Amino acid sequence: MSSPIQDPKIIQIGFIVRDLEATKQQVARFLDVPVPPTVSSGEYEVTQTVYRGEPAPLAQCHMAFFDFGGLQVEFIEPNEAPSVWRDHLRRHGEGVHHIAFGVKGINKAIERCEQWGMTLEQKGEYRRGNGRYAYLNALEDLKIFVELLESDE
Amino acid sequence: MSSPIQDPKIIQIGFIVRDLEATKQQVARFLDVPVPPTVSSGEYEVTQTVYRGEPAPLAQCHMAFFDFGGLQVEFIEPNEAPSVWRDHLRRHGEGVHHIAFGVKGINKAIERCEQWGMTLEQKGEYRRGNGRYAYLNALEDLKIFVELLESDE
Repeated sequence: MSSPIQDPKIIQIGFIVRDLEATKQQVARFLDVPVPPTVSSGEYEVTQTVYRGEPAPLAQCHMAFFDFGGLQVEFIEPNEAPSVWRDHLRRHGEGVHHIAFGVKGINKAIERCEQWGMTLEQKGEYRRGNGRYAYLNALEDLKIFVELLESDE
Repeated sequence: MSSPIQDPKIIQIGFIVRDLEATKQQVARFLDVPVPPTVSSGEYEVTQTVYRGEPAPLAQCHMAFFDFGGLQVEFIEPNEAPSVWRDHLRRHGEGVHHIAFGVKGINKAIERCEQWGMTLEQKGEYRRGNGRYAYLNALEDLKIFVELLESDE
């Protein structure tokens, strides 16, 4: 069986944090770069978040992004509503949550990952519907969540 | 203050696992590549491991390495002796432990990281003394361990 990911190149590492403002200040200090803006995941009308098979209109987060020499590193502060992000914070505390891969045709890619043995836990839209993501639980086999990212541009 | 790392490009992500043989089989299946060899950290005569300021002759691990599209991903199974690896497993379970950066002049780099606010937790030699590493605890500020890697070649 070929890889469930078309291009198994890690394009992003995602961290879950409790205090995004404090962490992004420290990371900017570490890289000696300007502090990046904080971005909201947006309202449910845009995100259409589905968590464990159910619509999750309250699940939101704030994010900030850095470039570590060509690799995007994302820091995510979840709100209190149930989500993969909040669940990670509750179970494991702060730290790395996922590695991300770029895909074309996310529904087919999700299916291939499920056939491989991962479990879809959350999906949604971003950038006003011009991109979408899916988080697949691969903790048992790969010891991490795999995120699929599809961008229309 | 400039970055404590000369080149803040992530060259490696390191995972701690309980069963390296099982995990490397799964990762090879995920990437659709041959299963890589398992490498031992080696004996203390080579590693000269120092853990929390004290010689740690019993601290050892087994490792396997993969290339995720240009990024090295390391999986580490520690033995039972105290080490940063064993400590991570005890406190956090399996998962991502560190991100690594290449440096020249590791002692100076360690010093810069300590001045920045990190704490040196472990260091040692590898490849028969042709390379050396240091693990710096940056959990409070960066939510992860930073590894410095210096290779003589």
